[in-house]
Amino acid sequence: MASQSSAAVISAASAAVRSESHPDSKKPIGYGKSGNMSSRICAMAKPNDAEALPSSVDMSLSPRVQSLKPSKTMAITDLAATLVQSGVPIIRLAAGEPDFDTPKIVAEAGVNAIREGFTRYSLNAGTTELREAICRKLKEENGLSYAPNQILVSNGAKQSILQAVLAVCSPGDEVIIPAPYWVSYTEQARLADATPVIIPTKISDNFLLNPKDLESKLTEKSRLLILCSPSNPTGSVYPKSLLEEIARIIAKHPRLMVISDEIYEHIIYAPATHTSFASLPDMYERTMTINGFSKAFAMTGWRLGYLAGPKHIVAACSKLQGQVSSGASSISQKAGVAALGLGKAGGETVAEMVKAYRERRDFLVKSLSEIEGVKISEPQGAFYLFIDFSSYYGSEAEGFGLINDSSSLALYFLDKFQVAMVPGDAFGDDSCIRISYATSLDVLQAAVEKIKKALEPLRATVSV
Amino acid sequence: MASQSSAAVISAASAAVRSESHPDSKKPIGYGKSGNMSSRICAMAKPNDAEALPSSVDMSLSPRVQSLKPSKTMAITDLAATLVQSGVPIIRLAAGEPDFDTPKIVAEAGVNAIREGFTRYSLNAGTTELREAICRKLKEENGLSYAPNQILVSNGAKQSILQAVLAVCSPGDEVIIPAPYWVSYTEQARLADATPVIIPTKISDNFLLNPKDLESKLTEKSRLLILCSPSNPTGSVYPKSLLEEIARIIAKHPRLMVISDEIYEHIIYAPATHTSFASLPDMYERTMTINGFSKAFAMTGWRLGYLAGPKHIVAACSKLQGQVSSGASSISQKAGVAALGLGKAGGETVAEMVKAYRERRDFLVKSLSEIEGVKISEPQGAFYLFIDFSSYYGSEAEGFGLINDSSSLALYFLDKFQVAMVPGDAFGDDSCIRISYATSLDVLQAAVEKIKKALEPLRATVSV
Repeated sequence: MASQSSAAVISAASAAVRSESHPDSKKPIGYGKSGNMSSRICAMAKPNDAEALPSSVDMSLSPRVQSLKPSKTMAITDLAATLVQSGVPIIRLAAGEPDFDTPKIVAEAGVNAIREGFTRYSLNAGTTELREAICRKLKEENGLSYAPNQILVSNGAKQSILQAVLAVCSPGDEVIIPAPYWVSYTEQARLADATPVIIPTKISDNFLLNPKDLESKLTEKSRLLILCSPSNPTGSVYPKSLLEEIARIIAKHPRLMVISDEIYEHIIYAPATHTSFASLPDMYERTMTINGFSKAFAMTGWRLGYLAGPKHIVAACSKLQGQVSSGASSISQKAGVAALGLGKAGGETVAEMVKAYRERRDFLVKSLSEIEGVKISEPQGAFYLFIDFSSYYGSEAEGFGLINDSSSLALYFLDKFQVAMVPGDAFGDDSCIRISYATSLDVLQAAVEKIKKALEPLRATVSV
Repeated sequence: MASQSSAAVISAASAAVRSESHPDSKKPIGYGKSGNMSSRICAMAKPNDAEALPSSVDMSLSPRVQSLKPSKTMAITDLAATLVQSGVPIIRLAAGEPDFDTPKIVAEAGVNAIREGFTRYSLNAGTTELREAICRKLKEENGLSYAPNQILVSNGAKQSILQAVLAVCSPGDEVIIPAPYWVSYTEQARLADATPVIIPTKISDNFLLNPKDLESKLTEKSRLLILCSPSNPTGSVYPKSLLEEIARIIAKHPRLMVISDEIYEHIIYAPATHTSFASLPDMYERTMTINGFSKAFAMTGWRLGYLAGPKHIVAACSKLQGQVSSGASSISQKAGVAALGLGKAGGETVAEMVKAYRERRDFLVKSLSEIEGVKISEPQGAFYLFIDFSSYYGSEAEGFGLINDSSSLALYFLDKFQVAMVPGDAFGDDSCIRISYATSLDVLQAAVEKIKKALEPLRATVSV
């Protein structure tokens, strides 16, 4: 197998960093800690950065933005994309994006919207048609009664979450986030001048939050708990009984609200089932439910997500959105209506995609479990596998150097074997690496071969 | 002419407020000060709001969001839309939205994007193709040299501005905003914990910033000046010589940067010409240029705007966007490329729209100037007329009450004559009302008749 040289990859990466104006061009993409690619990219990028800063003007950034970490998943996805553009044959397992096309009937609804001139501002909160369709979906699929004025449609679920965090969190409030967590939760809490409080979970608990750990972390400052089920990055699904236990704890804390991120709701593998947190006893008024169209309906590029919650909170988020961006694309909203018309849980169309994801999960879990020293918790939903490679830490690779954390290992996979995955430290768990299996079985087979080949020489250098 | 009764309109408005979950459902839409519609809507809406607040959960909002004002233009646009939906025949002159359809060639580029499956995440900063096209546009039309990594594409120019403000403003910094101003500038400054410093301008100066006034307001805290030319809400266009004078003042203040909002660039009436602030001597490194597709290309529903500026600042904005929303719609970005391909300043397609806007402006200026006591500064760009009706303040209308500010007058026009316009106090100038003339001459003729009829009975009660 033709393996690109380290230098070539690094050079391409460096060029990509400079030409793509990466969010954090001074700290190179995704590999903050490991000294390998990062230091070299830094060295190459620095002179350019210095040039860009004129001495006569104060170009300093606000503390808020300076302290913000870039989205590492997006950084690596962007880097992999630019590497591919520059001719490096990367196997991309970093992006949180379905490999399927948007279903035809949904796509055609977008086409019709354009052709019919439905290309003007829609209501800030979203079209009445879409919000009514979302209400029906939440009623039928989730047992939740919302009126259209309890729904706020945004440019993707990421914006929905940020606005919810900004609406309820005052400076100094604590936002409880079980780890591994989706990369943006902590940064969005910081944008609200709130403090993220991380509660680690264990792979032996399938990365599910231990209610006792939650209870021990709650204080008067606890304002928000962010739950994500099915989970990105672990694929864990919270069983209803566990959510009920969590709800009982929450009910004791009048200040504590919940963001329930249900964006992967439909991508779930029986016998696992999805429970909407807002449907639990006394949790309706506490919960801001987040969902969207990107994942289940393969609509990432359409930028469409939503919030459902107490009227008072949704109105505040809506006011905020009116000053942040206004409403979502009118075209995407028409497509969203069509997506919700596909039938319960997306009907046959989504069921077929879920079937494919499940085959891929089964393949990955089986073939990666065979590797010595690798720990896996079988995902019950989403399209990610969060694998513990930590027994390989401390190893050394010839021509690469020390592998001592998830960043250096991910870099080693990318640099020496052209497999792009996201290091677990991006998600608050440095022992793991996230593989997105939203890609074909063929690609996954090739990736597994490369991962096996990559780990082989390492094994001799540590006691795996 | 069948004039709906006040009660019917108010009832419909009230219902609309409640069913559409307006951003600020406790303070009714757009009419904060005037006691008329607002108090009645309040009275009707309150019981519902109270019901929505359970006593056991702390539903308080963050101070940041509580102090935020809702976007008044969007509020009134939304209200007018919902009134129309409920059967009230409103003449809508409130929205800042072209009445033209998106040009066919641009729309078809969106259709092709969908059909070709270009419906996945694009780079956070925007597709390379679009950013390269924007660079060419800025070079050819504005004399500005930017590399693609100095461009950040967002979900509309509103988002571009917010991110720029958040990137450079630290808490306590001052943001200098000439009034009348676009409604979101002040609120976006507040979102950054900065202090808006308003500099009033005069209708006799065509609402252009007096350099001496600027100089007198600048302190060490001054971090940002926001200019908008052609201006929303006044239609004023800054002559190059005035901008040069402003630039000379700015050059003396190392901390002061500039947001130049050029979203109405192409909608300009000869002999007026557009000057990009960044093209002035020493202003390139100071300036964050904002532009977008909504206004010139009639693409409001596509949600597409951009920022061009110093690499360092754009990188910070890009990092922020990665945590706020990710990139813009991939479909809209393909349409944006097609829009920039229409030719210089949008070619014949945009020239035709500008010709229509100009006819409408000429009609409005001529026919409204005939009304006693009305002051007008002829707009040189955009599609707004900002009319001084203040000589009518203090008047009384039968069955309505006192008219003593822009809100009560706008409400009177809406309530009694079904003409929706935005009160000037939304833009920081209570003596005026904004008319958007992005609508047909027929509609404008009907509107002028109604405005004349509305003012007639008032004239007798004040010395106009």
